[in-house]
Amino acid sequence: MARLVPRKISSKDLHSIPKMIDISGKPVIKREAVAEGTIYLRKSTMELIESGKIEKGDPFQIATFSAIQAIKNTPSSLVMCHPIPIEGSSVEFDKTSDSITVRVKVVASSKTGVEMDALNAVSVALLNIWDVVKKYEKNDQGQYPDTRIADIHVVRKFKEAKSEEGK
Amino acid sequence: MARLVPRKISSKDLHSIPKMIDISGKPVIKREAVAEGTIYLRKSTMELIESGKIEKGDPFQIATFSAIQAIKNTPSSLVMCHPIPIEGSSVEFDKTSDSITVRVKVVASSKTGVEMDALNAVSVALLNIWDVVKKYEKNDQGQYPDTRIADIHVVRKFKEAKSEEGK
Amino acid sequence: MARLVPRKISSKDLHSIPKMIDISGKPVIKREAVAEGTIYLRKSTMELIESGKIEKGDPFQIATFSAIQAIKNTPSSLVMCHPIPIEGSSVEFDKTSDSITVRVKVVASSKTGVEMDALNAVSVALLNIWDVVKKYEKNDQGQYPDTRIADIHVVRKFKEAKSEEGK
Amino acid sequence: MARLVPRKISSKDLHSIPKMIDISGKPVIKREAVAEGTIYLRKSTMELIESGKIEKGDPFQIATFSAIQAIKNTPSSLVMCHPIPIEGSSVEFDKTSDSITVRVKVVASSKTGVEMDALNAVSVALLNIWDVVKKYEKNDQGQYPDTRIADIHVVRKFKEAKSEEGK
Amino acid sequence: MARLVPRKISSKDLHSIPKMIDISGKPVIKREAVAEGTIYLRKSTMELIESGKIEKGDPFQIATFSAIQAIKNTPSSLVMCHPIPIEGSSVEFDKTSDSITVRVKVVASSKTGVEMDALNAVSVALLNIWDVVKKYEKNDQGQYPDTRIADIHVVRKFKEAKSEEGK
Amino acid sequence: MARLVPRKISSKDLHSIPKMIDISGKPVIKREAVAEGTIYLRKSTMELIESGKIEKGDPFQIATFSAIQAIKNTPSSLVMCHPIPIEGSSVEFDKTSDSITVRVKVVASSKTGVEMDALNAVSVALLNIWDVVKKYEKNDQGQYPDTRIADIHVVRKFKEAKSEEGK
Repeated sequence: MARLVPRKISSKDLHSIPKMIDISGKPVIKREAVAEGTIYLRKSTMELIESGKIEKGDPFQIATFSAIQAIKNTPSSLVMCHPIPIEGSSVEFDKTSDSITVRVKVVASSKTGVEMDALNAVSVALLNIWDVVKKYEKNDQGQYPDTRIADIHVVRKFKEAKSEEGK
Repeated sequence: MARLVPRKISSKDLHSIPKMIDISGKPVIKREAVAEGTIYLRKSTMELIESGKIEKGDPFQIATFSAIQAIKNTPSSLVMCHPIPIEGSSVEFDKTSDSITVRVKVVASSKTGVEMDALNAVSVALLNIWDVVKKYEKNDQGQYPDTRIADIHVVRKFKEAKSEEGK
Repeated sequence: MARLVPRKISSKDLHSIPKMIDISGKPVIKREAVAEGTIYLRKSTMELIESGKIEKGDPFQIATFSAIQAIKNTPSSLVMCHPIPIEGSSVEFDKTSDSITVRVKVVASSKTGVEMDALNAVSVALLNIWDVVKKYEKNDQGQYPDTRIADIHVVRKFKEAKSEEGK
Repeated sequence: MARLVPRKISSKDLHSIPKMIDISGKPVIKREAVAEGTIYLRKSTMELIESGKIEKGDPFQIATFSAIQAIKNTPSSLVMCHPIPIEGSSVEFDKTSDSITVRVKVVASSKTGVEMDALNAVSVALLNIWDVVKKYEKNDQGQYPDTRIADIHVVRKFKEAKSEEGK
Repeated sequence: MARLVPRKISSKDLHSIPKMIDISGKPVIKREAVAEGTIYLRKSTMELIESGKIEKGDPFQIATFSAIQAIKNTPSSLVMCHPIPIEGSSVEFDKTSDSITVRVKVVASSKTGVEMDALNAVSVALLNIWDVVKKYEKNDQGQYPDTRIADIHVVRKFKEAKSEEGK
Repeated sequence: MARLVPRKISSKDLHSIPKMIDISGKPVIKREAVAEGTIYLRKSTMELIESGKIEKGDPFQIATFSAIQAIKNTPSSLVMCHPIPIEGSSVEFDKTSDSITVRVKVVASSKTGVEMDALNAVSVALLNIWDVVKKYEKNDQGQYPDTRIADIHVVRKFKEAKSEEGK
């Protein structure tokens, strides 16, 4: 089972080997992040949503449910993300005649920020909305000429001032 | 990519949008919860279990294994549950001539209680028992006239006295 | 790396080593299963649910989402269950003044039945209902004297007649 | 354990109870879907990527892995999606001086389309790119004034002609 | 939201972009694979196992459960693996005075082989054995001078002769 | 729903019921573990790897990606492992003309060690390497006469001196 004097792989051999950044020296402080994004739908689909006629279920409920599940699933979807003990989250919606905007707030006491968790939740919520209305967005060829997810961004990040004893 | 002045969705528009409660202000204290539940089986199945003749494996072992896995999987099954760093758990069984009772204890140092985690473990353990004996519980029509899971409840919750600085 | 003549572990040495039953020789046929179960809650909690005042969200919506997710998660919770490509499911509710009954139907074309998937969905749905109303079910000591999950059972299983050649 | 004559919940009581559509009667045919989306980054970040200087790892590699994992994870992120036995996928990239476009193709033999799986993969890939370059996108206040995910859409869906006996 | 004529990333720019091989054209045939591997432990630990004195539980039971769960989890651990509907599996053990060998058989009707699933199960089973006996394998400095996992390999693969046209 | 005076299952009845050890009384201190393992491949496969010709993707990238994901997935694969908030990890490789050695370092501030997490990551990384090169390792009968995973072990564990108030 002996391994003969192995040659260490040099930086010339490998291109940017990924790693998960070491955050062990950072203090645990309160973090908050708000992210949002928008899905553009047909006006006719928005009207069906308004009148509660989507066969697969209410898009706002499904988006909220899936957003909260997605927050907890972030370290599994985002390879380099640290697992963070999420302590709260809420979901809000804006709508126009042809779009729904999802806004997710995430709160945690942790060594690193929670904006990726909020972004992941927004993204999963928008995809769930698409999924439950897809039947109404397809054209005759089964294509989606109008449906678009857009403008996923971080609205704001916030962290408590570091307490003095924190490193 | 501009979003035109969106109308904020009011409480009149949406029915109880779910949220994950914010526990960030609560202190980390030691928590403990014990839950239990019972599965009713045929006497003949219980005798097969007693004599170690269940083809799929020993129900007590499988129940214990799956209970401990389920505790760690609680935030994924229960939408509004916070992820909690579980620090210990144990599983016990009672039996009668036609039932098995599963009792699960969960321990953690956390900002919220662990009773849902214990209940989830009990529930998954009972389902695993059902699964490994299902062949012996079916009647001629492939139905389960006798098998029932019942009385899943919290035996007790406990938390350490809050330290003075905690809220 | 040589392994010296190992002694085969005999049935005398090991107690019912579990296994996943081989279903490869069975035909793919249409399967259906309906399971249900009940959670008993306080009348006061049921009134809050009726009036849409549960802070964490609507229990029926959350129960439905989590039931459907649970169906897909069954092979992960139930150790000896085969992965089954679920093709449809629906969730229904009954209620009395102090209880909610969840009924889940699961449909699949598969080599084995889907009753465990339906039972798992019922069980997870009931736990999610508990979780979103737990604040209203606790007494002064933080205990749950009234809350119970009961009577989880298979309402019926059904499978298509096997086609002659049983592919 | 008796349940007294329960009142069936009517459509007046519940708002669009969600369900997973029954696809059991549809034929298994070959499906393909291509989706894409774009992340807008700072020119300086794009230059770092070009010169292989991203500390957390190569964004194209990480985006590709996470896209392929995400395809397989779609039924878990998208509540109403059916589990589909994915049979192949590939990932391509376009870039400009301030953006990366991810394009994912998914292939499967299944009873329903795979566009949601492709969209989910694109979305997760874009979030992973954001995550590995986030250090270079933050301003002095730790905010992300420039980073945006945009234009996630289905490029095309395709399915084999239905065989005559299929529905 | 327009994307300006993007430059296609060439093979000069990117190093072996990974992909999941397209197996959609292959026939569904019966597959079987057997893999095994060995963990070397202290003689004193093996004696504790023999006498049923391992505090965390019986290593053979835990290894078996975790092996069967691992088979189903293979597409999540192995990035380029296709999801395969596993139809059966069994686990066997050999032992010597200082080692345990785990052998896992996996059966499926699928378009690609199941040897990676069997290897993954063996590997996870061996790690679970290590985990439950780790207390007895550590020396005074908390190190593991003796514990080794070795010789993980495929014992044999098997597939049914392809039917003539490869359906 | 009454449970008749149940008989407590005694240690005579059950063989080492597994449990997750209670670590709630242990202090949170910084932990580090390094594990490694080796996969033996054909010289011809190693040459293909060197020249970047592996169709499924670069083995070093895939191994690194999957190792980091595996660390976060350890409590799910290893039944009795506690969930640990991982704070950093890195992956290194050695190679000879017929082998690749994977070395994984894991860092966390926790109540228990992280060596199982590092071992799990090494093991999953090696399996991913096997998976992406399996086409080049098979002989004419589709068997793997040369491929072996070997010598998975803990290189070193380390923990900070316990602070005075810790136990």
